[in-house]
Amino acid sequence: MVVSPIQRGTLFGRIPVTKVSPVVEGGAYPAKASVGEAIPIRATVFREGHDAVNASVVLTDPQGRERVEPMHRSTPAGFDWWAAEVTLETEGAWTFRIEGWDNPWETWVHNAEIKIPAGIDVALVCTEGKALFTAAAERAEAAGDPAASALLGEAAVALDSGQQVEDRLQDVLGDDVRDAMAAHGPRELVSPTPDYPVFVDRQEATYASWYEFFPRSQGASFDAATGRWVSGTFDSSHERLAAAAAMGFDVIYLPPIHPIGTAFRKGPNNTLTPGPADPGSPWAIGNVDGGHDAIHADLGDFASFDRFVARTRSLGMEVALDFALQASPDHPWVREHPEWFSERADGSIAYAENPPKKYQDIYPVNFDRDREGIYAECLRILQLWMSHGVRIFRVDNPHTKPVDFWGWLMAEVRRTDPDVIFLAEAFTKPAMMHALGKAGFQQGYTYFTWRNEKWELEEYLTELATESDSFFRPNFFVNTPDILPTFLQTGGRTAFTIRAVLAATLAPTWGVYSGFELFENAPIGPGREEYLDSEKFQYRPRDWAAAEASGENLNLLLGTLNAIRREHPALQQLRNLHFHHAPHDSVIVYSKRSDADVVLVVVNLDPLNGVETELYLDMEALGLGAADVFWVHEELTGQTWRWGQRAYVSLTVQDPAHVLTVVRQGPSRQLATPVTEQAEVSPVPEPDAGGPAPAATTTTAGR
Amino acid sequence: MVVSPIQRGTLFGRIPVTKVSPVVEGGAYPAKASVGEAIPIRATVFREGHDAVNASVVLTDPQGRERVEPMHRSTPAGFDWWAAEVTLETEGAWTFRIEGWDNPWETWVHNAEIKIPAGIDVALVCTEGKALFTAAAERAEAAGDPAASALLGEAAVALDSGQQVEDRLQDVLGDDVRDAMAAHGPRELVSPTPDYPVFVDRQEATYASWYEFFPRSQGASFDAATGRWVSGTFDSSHERLAAAAAMGFDVIYLPPIHPIGTAFRKGPNNTLTPGPADPGSPWAIGNVDGGHDAIHADLGDFASFDRFVARTRSLGMEVALDFALQASPDHPWVREHPEWFSERADGSIAYAENPPKKYQDIYPVNFDRDREGIYAECLRILQLWMSHGVRIFRVDNPHTKPVDFWGWLMAEVRRTDPDVIFLAEAFTKPAMMHALGKAGFQQGYTYFTWRNEKWELEEYLTELATESDSFFRPNFFVNTPDILPTFLQTGGRTAFTIRAVLAATLAPTWGVYSGFELFENAPIGPGREEYLDSEKFQYRPRDWAAAEASGENLNLLLGTLNAIRREHPALQQLRNLHFHHAPHDSVIVYSKRSDADVVLVVVNLDPLNGVETELYLDMEALGLGAADVFWVHEELTGQTWRWGQRAYVSLTVQDPAHVLTVVRQGPSRQLATPVTEQAEVSPVPEPDAGGPAPAATTTTAGR
Repeated sequence: MVVSPIQRGTLFGRIPVTKVSPVVEGGAYPAKASVGEAIPIRATVFREGHDAVNASVVLTDPQGRERVEPMHRSTPAGFDWWAAEVTLETEGAWTFRIEGWDNPWETWVHNAEIKIPAGIDVALVCTEGKALFTAAAERAEAAGDPAASALLGEAAVALDSGQQVEDRLQDVLGDDVRDAMAAHGPRELVSPTPDYPVFVDRQEATYASWYEFFPRSQGASFDAATGRWVSGTFDSSHERLAAAAAMGFDVIYLPPIHPIGTAFRKGPNNTLTPGPADPGSPWAIGNVDGGHDAIHADLGDFASFDRFVARTRSLGMEVALDFALQASPDHPWVREHPEWFSERADGSIAYAENPPKKYQDIYPVNFDRDREGIYAECLRILQLWMSHGVRIFRVDNPHTKPVDFWGWLMAEVRRTDPDVIFLAEAFTKPAMMHALGKAGFQQGYTYFTWRNEKWELEEYLTELATESDSFFRPNFFVNTPDILPTFLQTGGRTAFTIRAVLAATLAPTWGVYSGFELFENAPIGPGREEYLDSEKFQYRPRDWAAAEASGENLNLLLGTLNAIRREHPALQQLRNLHFHHAPHDSVIVYSKRSDADVVLVVVNLDPLNGVETELYLDMEALGLGAADVFWVHEELTGQTWRWGQRAYVSLTVQDPAHVLTVVRQGPSRQLATPVTEQAEVSPVPEPDAGGPAPAATTTTAGR
Repeated sequence: MVVSPIQRGTLFGRIPVTKVSPVVEGGAYPAKASVGEAIPIRATVFREGHDAVNASVVLTDPQGRERVEPMHRSTPAGFDWWAAEVTLETEGAWTFRIEGWDNPWETWVHNAEIKIPAGIDVALVCTEGKALFTAAAERAEAAGDPAASALLGEAAVALDSGQQVEDRLQDVLGDDVRDAMAAHGPRELVSPTPDYPVFVDRQEATYASWYEFFPRSQGASFDAATGRWVSGTFDSSHERLAAAAAMGFDVIYLPPIHPIGTAFRKGPNNTLTPGPADPGSPWAIGNVDGGHDAIHADLGDFASFDRFVARTRSLGMEVALDFALQASPDHPWVREHPEWFSERADGSIAYAENPPKKYQDIYPVNFDRDREGIYAECLRILQLWMSHGVRIFRVDNPHTKPVDFWGWLMAEVRRTDPDVIFLAEAFTKPAMMHALGKAGFQQGYTYFTWRNEKWELEEYLTELATESDSFFRPNFFVNTPDILPTFLQTGGRTAFTIRAVLAATLAPTWGVYSGFELFENAPIGPGREEYLDSEKFQYRPRDWAAAEASGENLNLLLGTLNAIRREHPALQQLRNLHFHHAPHDSVIVYSKRSDADVVLVVVNLDPLNGVETELYLDMEALGLGAADVFWVHEELTGQTWRWGQRAYVSLTVQDPAHVLTVVRQGPSRQLATPVTEQAEVSPVPEPDAGGPAPAATTTTAGR
């Protein structure tokens, strides 16, 4: 038998278009975008010989309406790279394709500009040009653009007139004619790529501030009479909602709210010997009272949950629920659907293990024994909570479930409910993290937690912003109930400030687990990154009022950061990040720009020492010329300085970061706040931003 | 209308397999391989959770027969990269796919090795293992492998015996059992990618030595009586065939052999005023005597061409013809098929131009006005020459013709004549050069001509050997009738030696245009890279006998290089290139390895100065251990030295290169040739091969 393989991929068209991006797994999954987000479309477009080539993007919106946007040659020259930045305005399933085409107009202009001044073939060139203009005028007329048609008609006549030839050329190559020809000029040998999918999520998929807390801790109290705890409830958590709203958060994320298993329940600090009053880990889901579709009676019922959701909404926020696909041995699934779990050779159900460790309180789901059954059940559970107003799910350990299951589940949800957002809690190797993003997760947890050095932050953020951006959106949590980073354990209040500023300004989505603002930093043991007395295993009511009174509270900074994020569109995007040069190893400098909005951030990554250093700014990335002088407004303190391409900063242990907005002219705020020139601008800023250079001439005492 | 986009690409399977290579344009074109060539297959393969994953390549030969080869985890760890090196033995259209699969055997081994020594679940582990062995024994039996079946059956029994558990485990985890389980163990959740095409060309597509000459010059003579030249012919060129064979070349490439246009014929040195006796450029094809399907009467006729082809074959070589799709104004096509050319606005046929330059002796073909007609004509011409024994074509300026035309033409030829090879003469931007390779050209000219510095040679060769290798095969010509590189103009005999050694050992296919061996190096003008008195426009008979007598001839070196290439399979492959470290900026060091055959080359890139330097060898790339001591045999001079990880070389202006074969033990040749220890080996070679280090302890006077 001789095999005749099926044709895969796409053969070159008449005008080759290759290396198209963003294309995820050959187009099997949509690239990511969100409403109003600027996304780059790129391709390599070229042709044979010397004639001019051009390229366009054709966008098709969810209603099937097409629009064409021009592409531009991209740098470095010589690689035939073309690019366009497009903004997709409406939620839903878009597609794009690229069209390469022959551009006889540009070829003619190139030839005419050389030949006519040189007196070569002048009559012939004019005849060719006249034909191009006449045809374009007809297309403009047909397209309902009579002004362009008239202009192009005049150009055709001009080429035929008795004027001096050079003048005629000048006449017909004005900006108005060029614009009209860009709109109505010839497009020959049009060579389209296939249409590739892009899904436009609502803005919250890209930009939001998350706050996580355990409702059972909010209002919990120890009853000395019974020797037992009285659990906090949804209703007693309303005050925490108000506090989160005051800090400017958008999403309230709750750990699982379902009945908690009793078999092999864990005690405080993950011990195996719980007391009768210990509440257990919320992630050990299910007991005789129900499973993933039930609410833990200690927290309330569906009515109080609905009140909680409504209160959250009324504060301008929304609720995210945990979706943890595992069962305690008491979960109803275990009795009703043993086929959803793995069976061991002795007939028992396999609990989770990573030999020699055993996790007997959790049965992992087996997705291969009754795919149809377990798939349908998972969808049913999501739909239940969606019907109670939950439109965001934080998915626990998705990397321990099959990727193709997630691809199916999310496509199903998206089909009917395109506004639902999934956050992947996957801390694992890059291939899996990327695959989950490609398969449909709108967001993922990241390695940010363990990136503290300047070089590794620059490298990782560059990857996130420019390499994995079409399929992986980061959510920068500064801490989680599982992770108390070493940096926070040892760096004091300054460390918390540094990490909050970094997370809130590097990533458009960031998150805080409550307790962070109170500088909780006690680990369960030396070299460990888990919390002592973790809220996962016990009640942790906090004395918010006392923290407020003492000022031992980062809530004001968190609120300020979220307010700055809300005010500045530049901070609401991922792909617009640009790093600048500071010679000092512990000082990181970056900017984000969205049209006229430019935010520049300078952070000292060393929580234990202040630092003074020069900065060398990439002025083009700020939308400025190399010699420009501009004002920076410090959004955290209200100060204003005058800067140039070289600047000087002094960062202290008390104030380790500047969050600056860039203003071309002296801002009106300078009248309210005295202007301090933190750095005298060099008279002639030097373009050399890469190497050591003499320090700026004067410095001030700083802040 | 709501658009439902067609599914493109490939969704993740149960076990995700992504980033598969080699895949060219999504599988639209076959990846390149040649008979017997080792090619790398790569993918990222991973799975959820902790169970073991594995991957295989399934190869399908042109007859549809499948075979499975194992893949191995690749470095760096943590990226889930898998790789296999496969060798495809037969010419034709192969496919490959990758299968990711769940490996319960490896999962069991991992668990058993932890749990049994720790005394955890021992009975259960044994029961599980017994079931795995029993099932595998049955599969081995069914597969006709009774020895494995028996072995696995014994393993199953051993797990059930009364022995000490640890001993049982040791018994069942022997290499023989592991091998049997690799062959017959369980493969679950098998997840195949699509089948991707690979075309296996005959070996000459990858490995050959080319020699180019103009038959009209061979035996040409000036007749003083008539004042005209008598042209050389195919018959008078047979002596050059013998000379090329003596130098070890494989392919004889002839510039166009067709009638030459008379309209606007070029004179010597590309002048516009030819004399009546000037022969014109062979690339100005066609006159009243015929076009691409005719033979220039001065060279002979089809009978003498057939004799020439037969003589070439009898010498163990083959003929490559030029395929230049352009016409002189006298070409029969112009009269019979004006629709195959572009028409200008005044009705005339457009000649080639790059304003303000005009090339009035050439009409470029327009492939868009009568695609069917011109496509069929091009195929007819190729088939004519193929029927006269031409199986290699060197295509002139393919980057000025549409890429999709070449894709069509080569697929048509390959369909009936899979042995025909096309070399693209494209000196242009990377996107086009790569596209031509993808569309079907088996080989391309390269930028090697202008890569003279160590850093740029290393960078370019790394790209060729590891990045573009699946779609672009280089042919390293040291010169062409169009290009006399500056390096050869100024570096004397040493420069010619350097470039010959580099081309012959860096690339499996290389080429020489005759005259190179005579050190012809006069440019048409300062700063120009064209030959003075170029053979393109005039007869250039050469006094081969005098060159032979005087020794002013590189023929012996060329012959030696081609003999070394023939003897060493390592030099017949592209992808096996590895660079080593020499601290000196002008000394380049590289090796090629194919199984036991290892060739190591050291070249001084400075033709004007000798150099002495240390070398730091990457021993693993040579198939050696860091502390190994080995012999190197200098193939150009017959000397033999003893080397270690650090070595020392002295390269002179007379002998600027070493071509060394690596021998683990002292070679028998050492008896015939006195062994010189060019470098004393350090007692403990240091692994630090990257930075400066103390020189080797002693050196010899060298050669």
